[in-house]
Amino acid sequence: MDVGIVGSTGYGGVELYRLLSNHPNVSECILYSSSLDGTSYAEEYPHLSGLSGEKVKPILLEEMQQLDFVFLAAPSGVSRELAQNLIGKKVKVIDLSGDLRLKNPREYEEWYKGESAPKHILDKAVYGLTELNRETIREADLIANPGCFPTATLLGLAPLFHHGLTKPHSLIIDAKTGLSGAGRKATQSSHFSETQENLRIYKVHEHQHTPEIEQQLKIWDSETGPITFSTHLIPMTRGIMVTMYAELKNTSTTGELHSLYHSFFEGSPFIRVRREGQFPSTKEVFGTNFCDVSIKADPRTNRVTIVSVIDNLVKGAAGQAVQNMNVMLGIDETTGLHYYPIYP
Amino acid sequence: MDVGIVGSTGYGGVELYRLLSNHPNVSECILYSSSLDGTSYAEEYPHLSGLSGEKVKPILLEEMQQLDFVFLAAPSGVSRELAQNLIGKKVKVIDLSGDLRLKNPREYEEWYKGESAPKHILDKAVYGLTELNRETIREADLIANPGCFPTATLLGLAPLFHHGLTKPHSLIIDAKTGLSGAGRKATQSSHFSETQENLRIYKVHEHQHTPEIEQQLKIWDSETGPITFSTHLIPMTRGIMVTMYAELKNTSTTGELHSLYHSFFEGSPFIRVRREGQFPSTKEVFGTNFCDVSIKADPRTNRVTIVSVIDNLVKGAAGQAVQNMNVMLGIDETTGLHYYPIYP
Amino acid sequence: MDVGIVGSTGYGGVELYRLLSNHPNVSECILYSSSLDGTSYAEEYPHLSGLSGEKVKPILLEEMQQLDFVFLAAPSGVSRELAQNLIGKKVKVIDLSGDLRLKNPREYEEWYKGESAPKHILDKAVYGLTELNRETIREADLIANPGCFPTATLLGLAPLFHHGLTKPHSLIIDAKTGLSGAGRKATQSSHFSETQENLRIYKVHEHQHTPEIEQQLKIWDSETGPITFSTHLIPMTRGIMVTMYAELKNTSTTGELHSLYHSFFEGSPFIRVRREGQFPSTKEVFGTNFCDVSIKADPRTNRVTIVSVIDNLVKGAAGQAVQNMNVMLGIDETTGLHYYPIYP
Amino acid sequence: MDVGIVGSTGYGGVELYRLLSNHPNVSECILYSSSLDGTSYAEEYPHLSGLSGEKVKPILLEEMQQLDFVFLAAPSGVSRELAQNLIGKKVKVIDLSGDLRLKNPREYEEWYKGESAPKHILDKAVYGLTELNRETIREADLIANPGCFPTATLLGLAPLFHHGLTKPHSLIIDAKTGLSGAGRKATQSSHFSETQENLRIYKVHEHQHTPEIEQQLKIWDSETGPITFSTHLIPMTRGIMVTMYAELKNTSTTGELHSLYHSFFEGSPFIRVRREGQFPSTKEVFGTNFCDVSIKADPRTNRVTIVSVIDNLVKGAAGQAVQNMNVMLGIDETTGLHYYPIYP
Repeated sequence: MDVGIVGSTGYGGVELYRLLSNHPNVSECILYSSSLDGTSYAEEYPHLSGLSGEKVKPILLEEMQQLDFVFLAAPSGVSRELAQNLIGKKVKVIDLSGDLRLKNPREYEEWYKGESAPKHILDKAVYGLTELNRETIREADLIANPGCFPTATLLGLAPLFHHGLTKPHSLIIDAKTGLSGAGRKATQSSHFSETQENLRIYKVHEHQHTPEIEQQLKIWDSETGPITFSTHLIPMTRGIMVTMYAELKNTSTTGELHSLYHSFFEGSPFIRVRREGQFPSTKEVFGTNFCDVSIKADPRTNRVTIVSVIDNLVKGAAGQAVQNMNVMLGIDETTGLHYYPIYP
Repeated sequence: MDVGIVGSTGYGGVELYRLLSNHPNVSECILYSSSLDGTSYAEEYPHLSGLSGEKVKPILLEEMQQLDFVFLAAPSGVSRELAQNLIGKKVKVIDLSGDLRLKNPREYEEWYKGESAPKHILDKAVYGLTELNRETIREADLIANPGCFPTATLLGLAPLFHHGLTKPHSLIIDAKTGLSGAGRKATQSSHFSETQENLRIYKVHEHQHTPEIEQQLKIWDSETGPITFSTHLIPMTRGIMVTMYAELKNTSTTGELHSLYHSFFEGSPFIRVRREGQFPSTKEVFGTNFCDVSIKADPRTNRVTIVSVIDNLVKGAAGQAVQNMNVMLGIDETTGLHYYPIYP
Repeated sequence: MDVGIVGSTGYGGVELYRLLSNHPNVSECILYSSSLDGTSYAEEYPHLSGLSGEKVKPILLEEMQQLDFVFLAAPSGVSRELAQNLIGKKVKVIDLSGDLRLKNPREYEEWYKGESAPKHILDKAVYGLTELNRETIREADLIANPGCFPTATLLGLAPLFHHGLTKPHSLIIDAKTGLSGAGRKATQSSHFSETQENLRIYKVHEHQHTPEIEQQLKIWDSETGPITFSTHLIPMTRGIMVTMYAELKNTSTTGELHSLYHSFFEGSPFIRVRREGQFPSTKEVFGTNFCDVSIKADPRTNRVTIVSVIDNLVKGAAGQAVQNMNVMLGIDETTGLHYYPIYP
Repeated sequence: MDVGIVGSTGYGGVELYRLLSNHPNVSECILYSSSLDGTSYAEEYPHLSGLSGEKVKPILLEEMQQLDFVFLAAPSGVSRELAQNLIGKKVKVIDLSGDLRLKNPREYEEWYKGESAPKHILDKAVYGLTELNRETIREADLIANPGCFPTATLLGLAPLFHHGLTKPHSLIIDAKTGLSGAGRKATQSSHFSETQENLRIYKVHEHQHTPEIEQQLKIWDSETGPITFSTHLIPMTRGIMVTMYAELKNTSTTGELHSLYHSFFEGSPFIRVRREGQFPSTKEVFGTNFCDVSIKADPRTNRVTIVSVIDNLVKGAAGQAVQNMNVMLGIDETTGLHYYPIYP
């Protein structure tokens, strides 16, 4: 099977390359970039010395249309254009940008401050939250791969919201991410000296992943109100932790909630619901496609605290994309993703 | 003026030493420790080579009673005993442990899992949140210096709760701290290899600073309900950020709230309310006694997000203790605390 | 094939588990520990939740003797005793400690400050520097797996010393390592707050890897004099860089030296000699068994600078041990070690 | 006294501001920048909120000429031009760039790849290695403030080279620095995700501080040959450690060498020669003007290992500049530099 990666020189792209190069069903993995075409991949990423002899190609639409899969790891805006030129051809498209996730074009325009993809494309795109959408993903030609924060958040909340257990308007999401989520571009805010031994909050009430989370929660529980979602930059490279707070409609014990989570995620090999009383940390999923989750009820407040961790570049991007490819191929969804966390 | 530091070999103690050694009103700074007495201070802390020639003394109650000030930076439990032997003497006592902060002994026993100090001592102890309690601190002989999380939290919430602007039962506090807050003891969870590139949550719904925060909030706004408070370990050494979420009773704009904060903290040189739209980061207060605060209203949810940052060892411990000493001495509260943040 | 790991709860042990669990020739991987037997492995290492359901066993000599391979990742001293009870049985032994590396018992006693293994065991142990010793490793029953620093150092120097190109007495080795090399034990010097934003030198002129390096260099070039070897602790978890300086007997250009290195390491898939002018960094081998090397001649001084990097827990310990097992099995030496570096 | 800082928005500039703002002899500290003039300083550096209300000015030569001191913290090339327009006026100039350090213009052109300052300016500039040059600094109008690596290196070597104790051609200098030394500009190599958990070597045999070190060593010991000097980037923000290796002409014990160092640096309050057997780490001088040094002889090789640490932005730049200003003013050289290291 021949696959292509657009945006191959970004962090999402190079992580796709790591996973796809070792995937047993992939025979060739072609690299594309609109900005760095012509460069040697191993020169751009010396950790690939001896592993990649390839040169990065420019965007070659006709060639891409004939591939089996193409992964779009380009920035928002770029992806939208490419997707339109690839659908309806042989190739199946998995888009890792935010361009095709929001069904309502007005929401895209409001939160992304740019022009939305046309409605017929948005309608065609299947939201690739694998564990929750396997059936539709299997039949899809075009996947809108979820954002990193929505992945961790929605997996952490799915059992609660599926069963309508929380009060509307009570959800607070406090998200924390490593720096790699901001991409490879050198900016003042990704400068080591400004980041190390520092902790920052950003895009308060304005993060573009907010409507993506709300859209999905409302599908599960139509009473869901607007959420409070904030994001923090942690002085580490990989990893997302999302701490979520919600009020329960009725009283539940931590034990009952854990049972609910365990049964909800049965058959989902990448979701590890931790034992009662144990909360996951980001390093415990480093380099893998796992999403580890725990929940605890507080009888004092009748609120629950839910914690969900992922590696933002794997389950939050490239890994889930490969998982979706596996589902579309009808093979075991863990194929090519059998990595153990690197620890310490 | 002669001062003493008990628990001088811990991180709180050595930070007190840094500040007191350069304080213009302090002529001698005597070091005590119950566990490491007899050791050379500069041998224990080589960064003090040439700056401290002192040996650490054992606990000498009679000597301490004759000092002008003694700072108790010993663990909870130890402090309680010492305080009882020092009050009623010449010396004024500033206790940095949690032993004397909770007025209700049952709350101490529930959250600290140990025996409370006797009620008459608790009654005597003045809660040393300097900016809010200057008048009573000035007259006090015994200060219960606030915890690091309560300091950042309460300073971030004081204007709102003083004016009763938030709905009861709506407060969520998501706190993040560097590792130095956990002290100098070598433990598995403070091991570099387990901490670096890692993000952890701990003591979910069980942190002993919870009742300390609630006690003070209820003084300001008696309707305050139980809070949700969670704490995270950030892979950095110093710094606390507290992100707080609350629902407003009425609608307010971010501008109105900033005005409120600015006027509330007028005359408080260590509180820097940031301009509208700018949120502080922990590194921006590194090594100093500042507490930087910002707030933003979200019209979508009618909630506010408040962010407060401190250096946990300065404003969250040693710095605020020195600030309280200054107030007790009737001198400018910034004396000996004129440090600029070290950046980067 | 059934294999065992002694010292499975240390960092070397858990890294062996990561590699062996995914190794196609290993059917069972049994965990032993003298100190933590009885504990659940996934409770000790929650990153293995769902991946390991095993309990750690005590040292069971008879059981071990019947395994195909046993890896000793126990501390120096422990290993020596165990090895004596395992040789001569069915099991092949790969010892990752320093106990069996020095052929001269007096050197062991001088540098390790402990009793050496008996001479007949030392004589039996084959030094497992895979790339240089494949033939003897293939026939061995007992492997002394090289130390982390010697691995990086010797691979960086092998081409030069094999050809006798450097002046005796001119070699200086400046080594830098991440914290995981110091093991999992919580100590003052592994405390995050003492390590982060800090750089330390340790064991100056006294590091126990010194005689191990000298022993091998003298085999290659009998004129080799005593070396200067120093080690530094870098605020990172994984990775070793060794910077080596030596004077050339004759003049060589960087190009000539690169040609020499390339041809020397032909057929060694884990050694990546970088292109002229490009030096490797530790992150470029993170999580893998690669050793990346570069060299540069300085016509001003007629010295060369050689840089060699490895992941200390992989090529410097567990990875090279598995590579040696592969050689002993007569299978492709990269089996089970096809990992791409995780970057960033 | 009125002083100016050119290049005030860089890391060297903002560190000068920290020190000069708290200096008792400085009444006004004016900020200049050729690139960011017009911006509010506290907006550029929010850690200065409430501490600096100033706007950054453009380069105003006439105004600068009337100041008491001007510090040039601009990049190489810029400094050279400015210095020419400032000398001969009232103002005394302390240049922190590399433009005026090399007395031989050809060396500048070879190592800096740019045009040298005119010879008469170079002749006028006094090399500001304070501890070694106090007498000439006192009389100077123009100071070439030493580079960060040369400062640590030369202070570590001065006693040995003054007494001609080492063999010519035997010196190897292995330097390690935090990221802040590379300045504030956002580049690929200063990106957090490429730097964290990474260790790199750069400019092998090509670092522009090489001739600066050689120039000074030859003044002390004319037999000094070309040195080997290499530099590594450590994943930390501040701090330089230089590890130096040299062969002794005759045998000396560590004790004898420590005595030599202690007496050599008597009267130098910022040089802390550590006790025999104790080596300094970078964090032990964090935020201060100290240079901590230790030395150890190795009888096996007759080489010595010398370790020297500084904070690159203080003793390696702004702090030494202020120290030089103090010497030029004839006041205590520690004025305004009484900081204790921040630890941890």
